[in-house]
Amino acid sequence: MLIPDSHVDILGKPAFASAATIGPNGEPQNNPVWFGWDGSRIRFSQTTTRQKYRNMRADPRVALSILDPDDPYRYIEVRGVLVEVEDDPDLAFINSMALKYLGLDRYPWHQPGDERVVAVVEPTHISTMG
Amino acid sequence: MLIPDSHVDILGKPAFASAATIGPNGEPQNNPVWFGWDGSRIRFSQTTTRQKYRNMRADPRVALSILDPDDPYRYIEVRGVLVEVEDDPDLAFINSMALKYLGLDRYPWHQPGDERVVAVVEPTHISTMG
Repeated sequence: MLIPDSHVDILGKPAFASAATIGPNGEPQNNPVWFGWDGSRIRFSQTTTRQKYRNMRADPRVALSILDPDDPYRYIEVRGVLVEVEDDPDLAFINSMALKYLGLDRYPWHQPGDERVVAVVEPTHISTMG
Repeated sequence: MLIPDSHVDILGKPAFASAATIGPNGEPQNNPVWFGWDGSRIRFSQTTTRQKYRNMRADPRVALSILDPDDPYRYIEVRGVLVEVEDDPDLAFINSMALKYLGLDRYPWHQPGDERVVAVVEPTHISTMG
């Protein structure tokens, strides 16, 4: 799915996305995530014990709300589906996010025993404002 | 429901909330809103033609993800239910939001014909980080 030229720049910025998923009783759950954008899909890191991860495994529909950090009256909402879960055994992905968001080579908050995976979301519907 | 002392300050700041609701096919919808907090309930303005408003009328469950604008590694997620829809015929509420967020006495983007209401959300579950 094509992202409008007018708003695709937001996906390259170190913006936070609020990622909404559907919980076990059909209720919304919503919290901020770091994300990466490769030109066609959105990726974000999850530990496998998180509710959000369990939610997406049960219902793959996700809605990401992303404000432009340079102008909060511009935003893009990316709705999509979880199409893949990639392993991240050497933490390459989460480390790349630490570089994007913190300017650090390594993710500083890794806990021994955390199993990290990468949620890969394919956009299906876009809304924009501003 | 009590908001933890550790994070209640975020609700008093001019932060944006990402408001997730459930769409007609059970899918998440997510976009930023201004909000007010009176110590027990969250209020945000909606025009009655918006998808988000229609979603909440059909399924009252809402999840608001709110980053601390002064420290993006602190956040609060407020899950709750729409308990009331208040009229806003003289735009008192949306004007109060313009004051909070823009420092303006009047909401500058009102369109003739827009019917504005106030969604009143009662918190039922809180998550925090940072």
